[in-house]
Amino acid sequence: MADLSTQGRKEKQPAVSIFDNRQIFPEFRCGPLDQYRQRASFCYKRMNVLLEGEDYIRMKHKVWQWMEQHPDFQREPEVSSLERIRELANKRQHLWQQQFYGANEYLVTPHLLLAFGQAIFSYDFSTSVKFGLSSGMFPTTLISNGSARLGKYVTKIADNRILGAFALTEISHGTNVLGMRTRATYDPKRQEFIIHTPDFEAAKCWVGNLGKTCTHAIVYAQLYVPDDEHQGLEAFLVPIRDDRTLLPFPGVTVGDMGEKIGLNGIDNGFVMFNQYRIPKANLLTKTGDIDKLGNYTSQIKDDRKRLGASLGALSVGRVNITAIAYVALSKAVTIAIRYAASRRQFGPTNNLVEWPVIEYQSQQYRLIPHLATTIALRVATLWLGKEIVNLTIKGFSGEDTSREGTEIHAISSALKPVATWAARDGIQECREACGGHGYLKSSGLGDLRNDNDANCTYEGENNTLIQQASNWLISLRCKNADFVAVSPLETVSFLKDMDELLQSKSQEGTPAEAMDVRNLLKALNWLTAWQLETTVKRVEEQQRDGKNAFETRNNIQVFYAQKLSIIYGERTIYHVFYKFVSCLHDSVEKKVLEQLLSFYGAHLITKYASVFYRGGYFRENSHELKLYEKGILGLLSDLKDEAIALVDAIAPTDFILNSPLGVSDGNVYQHLQRAIVSAPGVFERPHWWRDVTYKDYLKGSNLSFKSA
Amino acid sequence: MADLSTQGRKEKQPAVSIFDNRQIFPEFRCGPLDQYRQRASFCYKRMNVLLEGEDYIRMKHKVWQWMEQHPDFQREPEVSSLERIRELANKRQHLWQQQFYGANEYLVTPHLLLAFGQAIFSYDFSTSVKFGLSSGMFPTTLISNGSARLGKYVTKIADNRILGAFALTEISHGTNVLGMRTRATYDPKRQEFIIHTPDFEAAKCWVGNLGKTCTHAIVYAQLYVPDDEHQGLEAFLVPIRDDRTLLPFPGVTVGDMGEKIGLNGIDNGFVMFNQYRIPKANLLTKTGDIDKLGNYTSQIKDDRKRLGASLGALSVGRVNITAIAYVALSKAVTIAIRYAASRRQFGPTNNLVEWPVIEYQSQQYRLIPHLATTIALRVATLWLGKEIVNLTIKGFSGEDTSREGTEIHAISSALKPVATWAARDGIQECREACGGHGYLKSSGLGDLRNDNDANCTYEGENNTLIQQASNWLISLRCKNADFVAVSPLETVSFLKDMDELLQSKSQEGTPAEAMDVRNLLKALNWLTAWQLETTVKRVEEQQRDGKNAFETRNNIQVFYAQKLSIIYGERTIYHVFYKFVSCLHDSVEKKVLEQLLSFYGAHLITKYASVFYRGGYFRENSHELKLYEKGILGLLSDLKDEAIALVDAIAPTDFILNSPLGVSDGNVYQHLQRAIVSAPGVFERPHWWRDVTYKDYLKGSNLSFKSA
Repeated sequence: MADLSTQGRKEKQPAVSIFDNRQIFPEFRCGPLDQYRQRASFCYKRMNVLLEGEDYIRMKHKVWQWMEQHPDFQREPEVSSLERIRELANKRQHLWQQQFYGANEYLVTPHLLLAFGQAIFSYDFSTSVKFGLSSGMFPTTLISNGSARLGKYVTKIADNRILGAFALTEISHGTNVLGMRTRATYDPKRQEFIIHTPDFEAAKCWVGNLGKTCTHAIVYAQLYVPDDEHQGLEAFLVPIRDDRTLLPFPGVTVGDMGEKIGLNGIDNGFVMFNQYRIPKANLLTKTGDIDKLGNYTSQIKDDRKRLGASLGALSVGRVNITAIAYVALSKAVTIAIRYAASRRQFGPTNNLVEWPVIEYQSQQYRLIPHLATTIALRVATLWLGKEIVNLTIKGFSGEDTSREGTEIHAISSALKPVATWAARDGIQECREACGGHGYLKSSGLGDLRNDNDANCTYEGENNTLIQQASNWLISLRCKNADFVAVSPLETVSFLKDMDELLQSKSQEGTPAEAMDVRNLLKALNWLTAWQLETTVKRVEEQQRDGKNAFETRNNIQVFYAQKLSIIYGERTIYHVFYKFVSCLHDSVEKKVLEQLLSFYGAHLITKYASVFYRGGYFRENSHELKLYEKGILGLLSDLKDEAIALVDAIAPTDFILNSPLGVSDGNVYQHLQRAIVSAPGVFERPHWWRDVTYKDYLKGSNLSFKSA
Repeated sequence: MADLSTQGRKEKQPAVSIFDNRQIFPEFRCGPLDQYRQRASFCYKRMNVLLEGEDYIRMKHKVWQWMEQHPDFQREPEVSSLERIRELANKRQHLWQQQFYGANEYLVTPHLLLAFGQAIFSYDFSTSVKFGLSSGMFPTTLISNGSARLGKYVTKIADNRILGAFALTEISHGTNVLGMRTRATYDPKRQEFIIHTPDFEAAKCWVGNLGKTCTHAIVYAQLYVPDDEHQGLEAFLVPIRDDRTLLPFPGVTVGDMGEKIGLNGIDNGFVMFNQYRIPKANLLTKTGDIDKLGNYTSQIKDDRKRLGASLGALSVGRVNITAIAYVALSKAVTIAIRYAASRRQFGPTNNLVEWPVIEYQSQQYRLIPHLATTIALRVATLWLGKEIVNLTIKGFSGEDTSREGTEIHAISSALKPVATWAARDGIQECREACGGHGYLKSSGLGDLRNDNDANCTYEGENNTLIQQASNWLISLRCKNADFVAVSPLETVSFLKDMDELLQSKSQEGTPAEAMDVRNLLKALNWLTAWQLETTVKRVEEQQRDGKNAFETRNNIQVFYAQKLSIIYGERTIYHVFYKFVSCLHDSVEKKVLEQLLSFYGAHLITKYASVFYRGGYFRENSHELKLYEKGILGLLSDLKDEAIALVDAIAPTDFILNSPLGVSDGNVYQHLQRAIVSAPGVFERPHWWRDVTYKDYLKGSNLSFKSA
């Protein structure tokens, strides 16, 4: 939590105060946004410090300032070819040399890992994913799953001599991990594994870094030992390309997946192995090992559990994706809200003075809900990020972390979908709210949408992943678990009074009562309990009908389990935000955060209004819903005057944001002009101009070409 | 309506029967979809004929077969540069030479215009928009608004000597058309207009064909006659580029808007005029004219009305966009449903045989609602298209079409947003439902999304446009209009009994009753009436509070007027679909269409469930909503077996669909392999490979570069 003790005595601050740091908090240039900055009731700098803390902000800006000054990180207005995008994303990996945040920093200030992650992802997703794969996921997996005999590789990684990839998914198997068909057959004579891909369906695919750049890959394959005995899925370190020529080794057919909807800086690749031999030492042995003769031993008997242990890195991945969905959404919301306050259209008196479009109720309702979600996600993603850092550190010290681990698994399985879908919908609304100019590639909104789109799919496809959360909740209720004991993170502890909770009813009689943040929490608690109870009843119905576990899980998803997971995720976001606000000292910043919290909660209530009616929390024909609607309309007109200062509090620098529509001075048309005119060839006649005026290309062709 | 008399006596058909036409209805190659084709209860060919009619289908396939055989229309697996995409879209305009559908065809079979439009848009949006601008919108506007003195241009257009553009939007004014700032000042001495752009904010922008290719543009400018007298916005034919050299004329600064989120084949441009002179004859005179001295006369006094008359082409544009949103959605749904029936993942018994993912309830609920919407839009967009063709023909014959015109204006203002948003959400869900492989550019889903995205913005930004519908509905109710008299298209005639309707309540006691298509219509009628009534009350509330018309319109949008327009659009789609199904003779095809209708209606009820509770149509704590949910779950499992035959009935040919995931044989992995491997350079080492292995680029740079 940020230190608020500086409040009210700004003059006495030493020169080092973050508030006076002009690189972090520059004076905004004059422009159309001035009036909104003046109208805001609070200080955006204090808000930023409240939300993120000083260390966090300093870390972000250190990275951003370095990028802004570095030649390789300059933005290119040219239309980039796929090749050029790849080249830049690869080149920018020398970021590792700067060691902004390495192992030492992690030991001293582990939570700043989140700040470093946000800083790089705010610049560009492709570069950051490549960096994360090469400097994070690959070495982490290798070190944590490998054994001492792979030490030479660890040295090479540290020297940045090898570039790694993580190859799990196959063409015909993604979600069903145990269905993978790549084989690793042990040959005791030569003490080697023979890696083989039976057909294209079993080719490893979508592997980041594999398409063009990696030298090695961690490959998951079904292990067979002598007598064709199957031992389950294991991981192997497999050399892919020569680390000097970057040419693939014989027996390895490796290629690029081609152009994608987004994230084109990443060279996702596929690979097929043809009886390709690797040394016995290259088996990653955390979960199992074989002796020279091929006798297999493992401490973990169950296939699924062994895989779970080996795929630990994927849980961290989910938490990271939740955080980068926030990054994408916050950039989009910043762009759209600044544009809405700058862009004028129509007005009350015959168009003499036109209104900024943010003054229109319908425009407010397009943007403010996403702003409230953004701030809520700011708080919730930092909370989740810190919880997983704490978990990791506890794990290092040998403490039992199974309760925290289970709860984080469940809540991150709900929050990753909730956050990435919130970003998906919010970015799209921001694109539309910016009208035609938002459709320009240079607005940045298309790339944000396209890059975030992948977040809905990888590291656990949202619709599949979300079942992890509902499975946990259902099993807790079915076995009458102690909800407090299983919930060190307090995401389900409120369900200890579930039966009582289910009896509660709305008591609110005025918009003010309805919008009260405690009453909203009460309502969301009821909502979660009711949805859980209804889903459990549905499970019991299925069981009475004689359905087995597979059928039951299949039949409870629509209207029940899916909705339960999403409500659980959203209620958790509200609750985390609620606790955050409750802990603050009174201030103008706190007041605005409370309004946002109230807006976020009331918006959820209107989203699930039919459940509140159906479950009897609202009464028949009653006007409860209207109370929330009135409250929301009231907050819309309050919050539109705070909106610019709110995005100022979360926005990256103009260089990082990189959108003519979202520049902090609000002079959108000047920036738009520069963006349009600086694209090479903007005024040039196309090389095929004769096609237009002479149509010579038609003369050579068969003019009377007709279909059969 | 299609002729069903052939049913049941297929053997006796002459060889010309459309059902035996192998180019239109080829035999599907064997593959994973066979089992679903066998399970379907109906014949997909008859379904296609029912939905579209034989003539319509023949027209589409004529165009598609021609494209498939023409060298310029071959697909390019290469990553295309912006320049190449532009070149192809321009080149493909020679489509006009084929005269698939010209003025003569229009006079004989006007409704086939819709088939021609669908055929070309199914191939590619950019090509079709360019073709539509050059061969449709520009000449139509010129001919209908110009006078005989522009005859030489009409001849040139017919000879395809000039390429036109339509320039209305400016950098700082889009929706507020009357706020345009480009000036046309009449100089009586030289009898010329001086076109001038005061600053970049007044530059015409987003004009299709203007960026690189047009020779002329119809430019809207504020007309000033001597004594600086302002006469309002008028249209002028303005030469832009030389029709031999394609170089812009002096005084014209014209350039390209640059890369966009989608539709990159269209060269959207901007233009600024510097005291640029054009002849007096180039004023389009339909709405007003001046004499030699500059005295202005117009038969239409009101500024807005004059503009409305001049912008008639934009209404047709809205109807067209509704139809092309259907095209985009139907392609996405075809891809995703075929993929879901081919892709297998997990299964009930330890993965020995995996299930096609369409067998999972959660996957069904992702796709079937969009399939039902697609079929509903198929019927509704053809209805709307035919209504506007009828209107145009009536107009030619001099009949009074003001009632039809007003109603079409209102309903198309609701349907364009409803359809384009349905496409937006459906395409996105299809992308996600195809998992990682859906994220490949070659899946086609990204381009469908990106191209449809523009539909939400141009020809009336959705959120603004939608107000046109609610304004009309509110004014009808406020002035107690005769709902039958004002509604020749029957979109509001049911409101004649509005007061009675508002008293009605749900009577359904079983899922079967709830899902009955008549009862669903009754419920949707109540919904529309209730939302209208509530919005009108909100208007009266505002008026009582002393708000003026501008404030009132602003304050009623959220929760009231916006929702009203959308409900009006959705209820109309349901009603048109309902009438269509009701008119069919009994058949297996009719039975499936009725299921889809029921699904579509029930899905709407669940969407607006809270309104049904709040307005008292549902009772407290009742299980009405559960009836609909049960009905939907039942239909999900019925319709998943019909889904493949349903998409077969609306899908374009494989060449036109152009997605490895959606090929009609369902052999997705074979097609995926070809798509990936046929991209040039897939196995090539990148030219910057030394960056990866030698990192020479680092040696020359300052390794210890640090931020300040």
